[in-house]
Amino acid sequence: MASRSIRLAVVPGDGIGPEVVAEGLKVLSAVAPAHDLTFQQTDYDLGAARWHRTGETLPDAVLAELREQEVILLGAVGDPSVPSGVLERGLLLRARFELDHYVNLRPVKLFPGVATPLAGAGPDDIDMIVVREGTEGPYTGVGGVLRKGTPAEVATQESVNTYYGVERVVRYAFEVAASRPRRKLTLVHKDNVLTFAGELYQRVLAEVGAEFPQVATDYVHVDAATMFFVNQPRRFDVVVTDNLFGDIITDIGAAIAGGIGLAASGNVNPTGAAPSMFEPVHGSAPDIAGQGKADPTATILSVAMLLDHVGAPAAARAVERAVSDDLTERGALGARSTAQIGDAIAKRVSG
Amino acid sequence: MASRSIRLAVVPGDGIGPEVVAEGLKVLSAVAPAHDLTFQQTDYDLGAARWHRTGETLPDAVLAELREQEVILLGAVGDPSVPSGVLERGLLLRARFELDHYVNLRPVKLFPGVATPLAGAGPDDIDMIVVREGTEGPYTGVGGVLRKGTPAEVATQESVNTYYGVERVVRYAFEVAASRPRRKLTLVHKDNVLTFAGELYQRVLAEVGAEFPQVATDYVHVDAATMFFVNQPRRFDVVVTDNLFGDIITDIGAAIAGGIGLAASGNVNPTGAAPSMFEPVHGSAPDIAGQGKADPTATILSVAMLLDHVGAPAAARAVERAVSDDLTERGALGARSTAQIGDAIAKRVSG
Ligand SMILES: CC(C)[C@H](C(=O)O)[C@@H](O)C(=O)O
Ligand SMILES: CC(C)[C@H](C(=O)O)[C@@H](O)C(=O)O
Repeated sequence: MASRSIRLAVVPGDGIGPEVVAEGLKVLSAVAPAHDLTFQQTDYDLGAARWHRTGETLPDAVLAELREQEVILLGAVGDPSVPSGVLERGLLLRARFELDHYVNLRPVKLFPGVATPLAGAGPDDIDMIVVREGTEGPYTGVGGVLRKGTPAEVATQESVNTYYGVERVVRYAFEVAASRPRRKLTLVHKDNVLTFAGELYQRVLAEVGAEFPQVATDYVHVDAATMFFVNQPRRFDVVVTDNLFGDIITDIGAAIAGGIGLAASGNVNPTGAAPSMFEPVHGSAPDIAGQGKADPTATILSVAMLLDHVGAPAAARAVERAVSDDLTERGALGARSTAQIGDAIAKRVSG
Repeated sequence: MASRSIRLAVVPGDGIGPEVVAEGLKVLSAVAPAHDLTFQQTDYDLGAARWHRTGETLPDAVLAELREQEVILLGAVGDPSVPSGVLERGLLLRARFELDHYVNLRPVKLFPGVATPLAGAGPDDIDMIVVREGTEGPYTGVGGVLRKGTPAEVATQESVNTYYGVERVVRYAFEVAASRPRRKLTLVHKDNVLTFAGELYQRVLAEVGAEFPQVATDYVHVDAATMFFVNQPRRFDVVVTDNLFGDIITDIGAAIAGGIGLAASGNVNPTGAAPSMFEPVHGSAPDIAGQGKADPTATILSVAMLLDHVGAPAAARAVERAVSDDLTERGALGARSTAQIGDAIAKRVSG
């Protein structure tokens, strides 16, 4: 069988980004041959260093190149030397919005052998997937400041929600729910306060839900959802929610599933009209950068999601199994460096 | 000493509201004499039943009466028979906004003997107070729907933040922090995405902070904060945050501190220009209403906050001590009814 070649953009980014991405790529290289895949890799220098050097975050020319790629692997962006929001809005969110990553897919799954801060909870209790809207809501950047620096100052932020945007992400979430054994979809919002946006989400849930009679639906306010993540995580199978609520609940999700070092994500454009982008949920962690202390597991699990996305589910499962086996043994292994963890997982998937 | 008389409005509300309020009042009556307090109580029939009967949520005339009271005790409002948002926006949020409750005070404190879902955490780890802004942010109700029911529909929600509103709540939070042993104030926001509002909060934190050199300040993004509530709750002493983020993190706060049955809150107007309103964080829980199953502890702790607010700190401490003693014994006592818990705590404070 001829090997399939896939154009892969890599954005190592800042802080621990390059370190964890190196391990993700190590595992990708190790798993690819057995699945007849090859990756044509192009690295992009984006992040704090470039911004300091050139003032650029995501220049149009680079964005145009990224559009020609099939898939993107991103490490992390952000550095305390850059004003808050510059790289987040100018690079990360710009990529998500321009490449129309309307599905931000975030599994919350406790692997066997991994410690959770929740007393008495096990892998059977924590196994859900959050489908976070990725291109609208409070993340639009719409808003502004009036009379800045005066006692009469007003700062606004607008959450913009469209039928177009809500329908497509809710539909995607129903498809995910229909493919899982429990077939349950929970909408998380705050429709008793954010009545306009909440009613739109509820109406679309009912409307699209009519096409998926096999999926049970449920609604939980975002405040209650955060509580249930902690004291009744079993309640959730698939969750669909807006961009900001999804940001928040997936960090609690990471916390209950063993920490941010294990949380993977995909910024997905399901139409294929632009490349999807896979990244660990964690940030650039400048405090531990360059020390070989970062856990590359979240990036490696993001690589598994990337493999699923490019149509290589067997390779994806192989990576997940290798991670799961590695996690089971961690307790007995003591501290390992970033590269040692990457090596161990790469060894398991190769051959 | 002549007894001090305080005008108290009581809004039992819906579901378990009347049951838990009855126990709160029982404890208030029990503690009052020893502290030379009397309460002139007026009950207000507001909530789902009134809305069904009259279509009213919080009529102007009732609001005008409430303004003449010194303090308000509220049980819970909301019922599945009322469309989501009608009572929340029309009654609860209307009261908070009209009475200018710009400080929503929510202690997150694990009492000794209370089970937390967090493995290994104890009372020393979970002892913070959240100062939630109560009169602006995404709760304004500003927003709307365009082209409803069409594929071109747009629904917006606007977060409105003013220097006026942010300064006063941040100042209050500094005062609270300065009065506590740890003297630490953490701003929780999402300034890397909600750049306009986030920058305003950050700027005000720095500006007001200059007047409180004894208070250490810190900033945590809301998504990370939810994670830290679960895996590093010790990190927090006093938290100041916007209306929506405060809503969300205080539910996780309730979860880690033993559940929503114990979480108290005060909607405070520190100027005294209008009455403050004390209420349990939990909702009306219609599924268990009328069965004597609801835990009145959150309401009783809200009564303690009410006592502090009316300038009766010794009475407040007596109620808190009684609750704490009661909680310590709960494990050994088995199931008790709402009234039995109220009786037990009332007994401890009387005499
Ligand atoms: C860095 C930040 C802009 C981003 C977000 O808010 O989406 C991050 O928290 C995430 O969850 O991917
Ligand atoms: C009922 C609802 C409007 C309210 C809020 O969102 O503030 C509640 O969740 C709370 O926390 O008091």
